[in-house]
Amino acid sequence: MVNILFAGGSHRWPQYQAPLRHALDAAGLSEAVLATDLPPAEVDYIVYAPTPDGFTDFTPYTRCKAVLSLWAGVEKIVGNASLTMPLTRMVDDGLRAGMIEWVTGQVLRHHLGIDRLLANQSGDWRPEVPPLARDRPVTILGLGALGAACAGSLTALGFPVTGWSRRPKDLPGLTCLSGPDGLTEALRRAEILVLLLPATPETDSLLDAARLSLLPEGAVILNPGRGTLIDDDALLDALDSGAIGHATLDVVRQEPLPPEHRFWAHPRVTVSPHVASETRPDTASEIIAENVRRAEAGEPLLHLVDRAAGY
Amino acid sequence: MVNILFAGGSHRWPQYQAPLRHALDAAGLSEAVLATDLPPAEVDYIVYAPTPDGFTDFTPYTRCKAVLSLWAGVEKIVGNASLTMPLTRMVDDGLRAGMIEWVTGQVLRHHLGIDRLLANQSGDWRPEVPPLARDRPVTILGLGALGAACAGSLTALGFPVTGWSRRPKDLPGLTCLSGPDGLTEALRRAEILVLLLPATPETDSLLDAARLSLLPEGAVILNPGRGTLIDDDALLDALDSGAIGHATLDVVRQEPLPPEHRFWAHPRVTVSPHVASETRPDTASEIIAENVRRAEAGEPLLHLVDRAAGY
Repeated sequence: MVNILFAGGSHRWPQYQAPLRHALDAAGLSEAVLATDLPPAEVDYIVYAPTPDGFTDFTPYTRCKAVLSLWAGVEKIVGNASLTMPLTRMVDDGLRAGMIEWVTGQVLRHHLGIDRLLANQSGDWRPEVPPLARDRPVTILGLGALGAACAGSLTALGFPVTGWSRRPKDLPGLTCLSGPDGLTEALRRAEILVLLLPATPETDSLLDAARLSLLPEGAVILNPGRGTLIDDDALLDALDSGAIGHATLDVVRQEPLPPEHRFWAHPRVTVSPHVASETRPDTASEIIAENVRRAEAGEPLLHLVDRAAGY
Repeated sequence: MVNILFAGGSHRWPQYQAPLRHALDAAGLSEAVLATDLPPAEVDYIVYAPTPDGFTDFTPYTRCKAVLSLWAGVEKIVGNASLTMPLTRMVDDGLRAGMIEWVTGQVLRHHLGIDRLLANQSGDWRPEVPPLARDRPVTILGLGALGAACAGSLTALGFPVTGWSRRPKDLPGLTCLSGPDGLTEALRRAEILVLLLPATPETDSLLDAARLSLLPEGAVILNPGRGTLIDDDALLDALDSGAIGHATLDVVRQEPLPPEHRFWAHPRVTVSPHVASETRPDTASEIIAENVRRAEAGEPLLHLVDRAAGY
């Protein structure tokens, strides 16, 4: 009997229960038990994502053969001393495609003025033709795999894209800037700014009051990257004054964002509940089931985390 | 003295006045008069678009050397017997780019569920990850220059695109269907349907009750093509019942759409005030000014309409 604990958060369970069950059955594991509540000493595998109500002490899971992360980023658990069993991270093709779709769709939403369109349905025929994409500069901070992929999608639509990365890069079809001076220039030209930097000590509150003030009047910020990239108070000040036109935040410092947080009610903020870079239940469940099958068969695990390197 | 009458509708004048003036100045026509009200017998050129409050009798314009259409489609005036002077149509690079941006943005809006996101900002963190584009079939009716260009943009994002045209076509990257049986199949698979057919007697009310019933439950219709393509009453019935999930209409049979029309207040309809295929003031003004310059210099006009062919 194989017992698999789903510890990915109660709000994710409804999305994952059927795909995981289906993937396990397809992997020849139809007798495996899949549940959100099992006695720790009887758990063989943990499907894990950090959640506010979840556990962080892996000590009681004495029989556990592997912790299978639902997320690509494992920075919250890779240093956990109680996690002594093998740890795998998620490598999901769906994540890259989903990020491109989210960023392209949100850039076009703001570019085309779809919010204004939806708010103006009371009978007033008022054609306001938006500028063409070629006249709408977009800046992407972070040129890793996701940033580069999003830049490609936006340049294909005609947007003049500036990309910024800490170290110099050279990608076709966009202006690549780097370093502190490059960041200043990248922000100055950003009518729409997309944040796709990793969470590191250097990027914490990178977008503070001083850097926010470099953006053009009324600029739009999209953050599908990490909640720590923004100084929230500085952003709220800039939104209150109108210096920043809108912020669409798919990630925030505390998730789920508390109902009383000012972001929810702010007319210039759209809270997106971390769906842009979300692992896809269908494709991710196949990876999880395959790793359980491998472990049971004594085969090497896919996407094993190098604990020294941290990823 | 050259007198140019802007007869493109009073609601368009604010958008065109400055770009036209700028383009005329740049073309060496800084002394040309540009106005929305001139004695007909003193008018040299008419910048024209059909409007409900506009004129259709060109007889009084005895001195007029050319009618310069602001629109690509001239079906409403090409048969006008009083229009005896040369007629040019608009060929605007900006129109094609703008159509791709509008269609891609509206497809992604519905695909990502942006309307639901905007409606759910009251503090309830409820992640609903949309399917990937590769699991969202899109059908485009009409594979002319605009339909083919939009198909290319959508297939690049991963959408499985089916295109339908009256006569067989073969375009890379999408499934091309044609004829009556092909139309049935194209509609049956369309979770999102994009209408880009021309206005002809054959396409009038092409989307009637019978064809609407072929669409999957909850399908979304985008019409940036022609208002005549849809049987409005049949569409309203299908929206009322929920058989059609949403219709985003950039063109309608009567423009401007009257304030009392049911489309405005319908929760499943977004009225877009004819901006998708709108000629761009900047790029179009350059074409208009160039044609005035040519006419004054005795050079042949650009984009002269073949009155026998009708375009």
